[in-house]
Amino acid sequence: MSYNAINFNDKFNLFNELWNPKVISEMNDYQFKLVKIQGEFQWHCHKYTDETFIVLTGKIKIKFRDGEVTLNEGEMYVVPKGKEHKPFADNLAKILIIEPKGVLNTGESKKSNLTAENDIWI
Amino acid sequence: MSYNAINFNDKFNLFNELWNPKVISEMNDYQFKLVKIQGEFQWHCHKYTDETFIVLTGKIKIKFRDGEVTLNEGEMYVVPKGKEHKPFADNLAKILIIEPKGVLNTGESKKSNLTAENDIWI
Repeated sequence: MSYNAINFNDKFNLFNELWNPKVISEMNDYQFKLVKIQGEFQWHCHKYTDETFIVLTGKIKIKFRDGEVTLNEGEMYVVPKGKEHKPFADNLAKILIIEPKGVLNTGESKKSNLTAENDIWI
Repeated sequence: MSYNAINFNDKFNLFNELWNPKVISEMNDYQFKLVKIQGEFQWHCHKYTDETFIVLTGKIKIKFRDGEVTLNEGEMYVVPKGKEHKPFADNLAKILIIEPKGVLNTGESKKSNLTAENDIWI
């Protein structure tokens, strides 16, 4: 049998859209999604699940109502369920998101032009 | 409020044992564990869950009964539940494991000197 690893850089080369999560793998009922981000996202939260951010390239910040966290390359942060947050990045950053299947990028906020189609595999 | 990201390198500097997963974070009922590996692990499987491997530094292989997968830095692989596997690395490699809380590193195989104490946070 032939088995192949998933290479993050190879996958990032397959798309250019910002704020548009692409699914690369699943573990049980969770998905691994690559996202390119730059600029500011919208305030939102995920009422029913934590959400994991891992920065693969660049630097991002996640704003909370009472503070913010900075993530450099090689750093991760888990946003607790129900916590309002707004990710942003001054420059292009490439990140890995881990969360249960079915989670929308804009959470339970009203849909906007930033709401990405879900479950898009590359 | 002050929020701090988790830095993989900083955490790796806190321990030297091989094959000894250290928990660095949780997402819902899943844990993120850092492991340093070198040499060969034992055959085992996890009957009830998939298991995610992400290579942060170095190169590893995961043997299956009918093949193997090579993971370089910046690559991931999800071992499906119930699939026998044996990780190994010719040289020291630093990896991130993601799996549900409570999973033993040697799975449902009989415990051995490689079975690590579970749920050790750093």
